[in-house]
Amino acid sequence: MDLGERIWTAALVVIGDEILSGRTQDKNVAQVAAWLNVQGIRLAEVRVVADDTAAIVEAVNTLRARNDYLFTTGGIGPTHDDITVDAIAAALEVGVEHHPDAMATLERYYATRGGITEARSRMARVPAGASLIVNKVSGAPGIRWGNIFIMAGVPHITAGMLDALTGTLEGGRPVVSKSVGGWVAESEVADLLRGTEKAHEGVAIGSYPFFREGRVGANFVVRSPDEASVDHCIADLTAQLEAAGYSIVAGGI
Amino acid sequence: MDLGERIWTAALVVIGDEILSGRTQDKNVAQVAAWLNVQGIRLAEVRVVADDTAAIVEAVNTLRARNDYLFTTGGIGPTHDDITVDAIAAALEVGVEHHPDAMATLERYYATRGGITEARSRMARVPAGASLIVNKVSGAPGIRWGNIFIMAGVPHITAGMLDALTGTLEGGRPVVSKSVGGWVAESEVADLLRGTEKAHEGVAIGSYPFFREGRVGANFVVRSPDEASVDHCIADLTAQLEAAGYSIVAGGI
Repeated sequence: MDLGERIWTAALVVIGDEILSGRTQDKNVAQVAAWLNVQGIRLAEVRVVADDTAAIVEAVNTLRARNDYLFTTGGIGPTHDDITVDAIAAALEVGVEHHPDAMATLERYYATRGGITEARSRMARVPAGASLIVNKVSGAPGIRWGNIFIMAGVPHITAGMLDALTGTLEGGRPVVSKSVGGWVAESEVADLLRGTEKAHEGVAIGSYPFFREGRVGANFVVRSPDEASVDHCIADLTAQLEAAGYSIVAGGI
Repeated sequence: MDLGERIWTAALVVIGDEILSGRTQDKNVAQVAAWLNVQGIRLAEVRVVADDTAAIVEAVNTLRARNDYLFTTGGIGPTHDDITVDAIAAALEVGVEHHPDAMATLERYYATRGGITEARSRMARVPAGASLIVNKVSGAPGIRWGNIFIMAGVPHITAGMLDALTGTLEGGRPVVSKSVGGWVAESEVADLLRGTEKAHEGVAIGSYPFFREGRVGANFVVRSPDEASVDHCIADLTAQLEAAGYSIVAGGI
């Protein structure tokens, strides 16, 4: 997909024992990925790490060095297992401070909910020099430090934080992706797919098999930042698959 | 959770542009995590990487060096975007060969499905020296090379491969986890949770807030390989939460 244009990349660190134990099905990877694409930023890599300072520090420092943006989810609540802010401050070699605007927000939020406490004021702690990301759902804000975005673990709170960031990050062209598919075994069309991808510069074709109703099928996804290239490739691929005798469904099945 | 016993760890590399693009919701992290725990092995870290040789090589070599086991999912099909076997062989600095048993399996599988082709025979390619993992669902086997387990991307095929491996890997005691929860704001009980965890050696307490029906609640998960320790901690935690005036549901809500 090299079109000679600047590609903006991001990495995501998912922080949480609950994901690694299998207790909780992660939903943040998919929503962050989809949101990033709309901003013209590619999600280049994801790591899921435990609630462990050394693991967080390693992931944050490795990934922020080689991506334009770094996002984290999880571990910013008020309890003892919420160590994200301290770990990221350690990674950045800065101190931790109570952000005055976050304190004011939490004081307002908890005014009718029993008042601010020491545990609650923990959610105002940020790596020194950070700004805040609005949380429209609950009291505790997200945190921005340079190009690092520290977000909640609860997916719909993260969604609100992403919404608050929409349109504020520099990116390139979003990747356009369109699909065709049908009841076709991918192994029958492997050469056709490879040849079609080669014939269309700047596009990538992914082949995703599935098994449903006892039958084998596949969806073929064509991706490029250039929509016209995607459309040409989809048209070519569809024509070739139909010429080979397959009944193909636009959009995939 | 240091009980002075040997902890067996695994890492998982999820290989696939479709996860990083947000097109596909990953389900393999949760199922591999849950399966590993039954084997007495902890999932210590996960990376999601693109269909890119350098990214796969880096992840595989870093993670296999520091874990007892390494699992991968994705990229073992017959099409041009399936590069996992070649990338892992590159990481291991071994060649790629057609495994004779895999060839025989594929020939049998495709005997009634149009016969073997060059594309289909790609699914018999393994890093030199590998053995096979049975695939009860479709023709292409998984691959074992030392303590590396190369599995499918389609979750129910991966499930079958895990099933074939059940009980064959050395591990320690599985982590037992039990939950209590209720309509309680975690920020109100942060000190109580921290104190309870400290009072119960060898257990970890995780606090997982949720927002439902317009109300705030949380589940508290107690984990340890020692079931008696988990039970003691759960009983203590429940008693303290009830003494503090909360109505607590065993098992969480």
